[in-house]
Amino acid sequence: MEIEVLEGVFDANEIIARENRSLLDGRGAFMLNLMASPGAGKTSFIMKTLEGISGEIKTAVIEGDIAGKVDSERIAATGVQAIQINTGGSCHLEARQVNTALNRLDLEGVQLVIVENVGNLVCPAEFKLGEDLKVMILSVAEGDDKPLKYPLMFSESDVLIVNKIDLIPHTDFDMERLEETVLKMNPSVVIFKVSCRTGEGLDAWTAWLKKRVRSGA
Amino acid sequence: MEIEVLEGVFDANEIIARENRSLLDGRGAFMLNLMASPGAGKTSFIMKTLEGISGEIKTAVIEGDIAGKVDSERIAATGVQAIQINTGGSCHLEARQVNTALNRLDLEGVQLVIVENVGNLVCPAEFKLGEDLKVMILSVAEGDDKPLKYPLMFSESDVLIVNKIDLIPHTDFDMERLEETVLKMNPSVVIFKVSCRTGEGLDAWTAWLKKRVRSGA
Repeated sequence: MEIEVLEGVFDANEIIARENRSLLDGRGAFMLNLMASPGAGKTSFIMKTLEGISGEIKTAVIEGDIAGKVDSERIAATGVQAIQINTGGSCHLEARQVNTALNRLDLEGVQLVIVENVGNLVCPAEFKLGEDLKVMILSVAEGDDKPLKYPLMFSESDVLIVNKIDLIPHTDFDMERLEETVLKMNPSVVIFKVSCRTGEGLDAWTAWLKKRVRSGA
Repeated sequence: MEIEVLEGVFDANEIIARENRSLLDGRGAFMLNLMASPGAGKTSFIMKTLEGISGEIKTAVIEGDIAGKVDSERIAATGVQAIQINTGGSCHLEARQVNTALNRLDLEGVQLVIVENVGNLVCPAEFKLGEDLKVMILSVAEGDDKPLKYPLMFSESDVLIVNKIDLIPHTDFDMERLEETVLKMNPSVVIFKVSCRTGEGLDAWTAWLKKRVRSGA
């Protein structure tokens, strides 16, 4: 009984996700769904990404949070178009909310839409938004054992960003063990190791992203 | 429509939470619901807590995870009774699952049941399990701005454990700002600052917990 209700929710969500997809395709825009635990560094990562593609890829940002608008204000302060979704308690974004946001944004000339999902390693992985790319961030401070505990997120993501690598010397984090575990679950995942604090590794990521956005695939 | 379905879920959950409560009351046992983001250090914190109360408070542990049994195996290796709940995709524990676990455990003489919830700062705060105490962990690496983004968790918790304080010198974490924000939202919250890595601050926490368990309140 409960499972049937859930399937209904997912079906309805998927129909709107497909609408989002064709809305974006019609404009030649690329959408990235960014997911992570609370505090893994999603907003800082977006800020650094915007810096790295500034003047080359016209971008808009959709911020998802339970409450507040601190993140969208941080983005908007850089001159990039940003819109805030407050889920009011819900632990993930749904396609319907992203649809509303897409329709409110001025998408004229926009090549890339970055969606920052609610901080959660579980449910966001289950809800398609119509994105081209699922990107997840794991912070070094969370530990290298997370893939086994949150398998869906790690197996669904196209890109894994390992953030806060400047903290590695102060933790027991084992990068080899992480990579081995993740690649077993998701052999095609692309991994970038970065520190949004020191800037390390971000150039490789933004170069890769620019290529993907331009190829439209 | 959706909200009504949710209310139904919460009502049904609350009835079973009350059953758990009376099952524990009948045995004079205390239950602690431990919540945090993935990687905040829940399992390490439980291990350190068990060390600190060993030989004084007879304890059993209920481990909640989406998948896997690494955590319950770690606990059981110390000789403490442990049981694993796999939610199979669900992002929080519900009272019904804890009820099943309580009925499988040998509660003879057990004074304290520690429940490790699924790693998530959102939904676990909404589901009562029949606990005496809601304890949440925030890792320093997650940042001091989390209370405003995940307000329910911070306002519902009786105790806030700030973990990984050994990382403070390597981050921009501002303890004063955190305390100010949290105490505004939740003036009665008790805050402990600890590092499960160095052991700092754990004595104060275990001393406080022993007193609470013995007073049964």
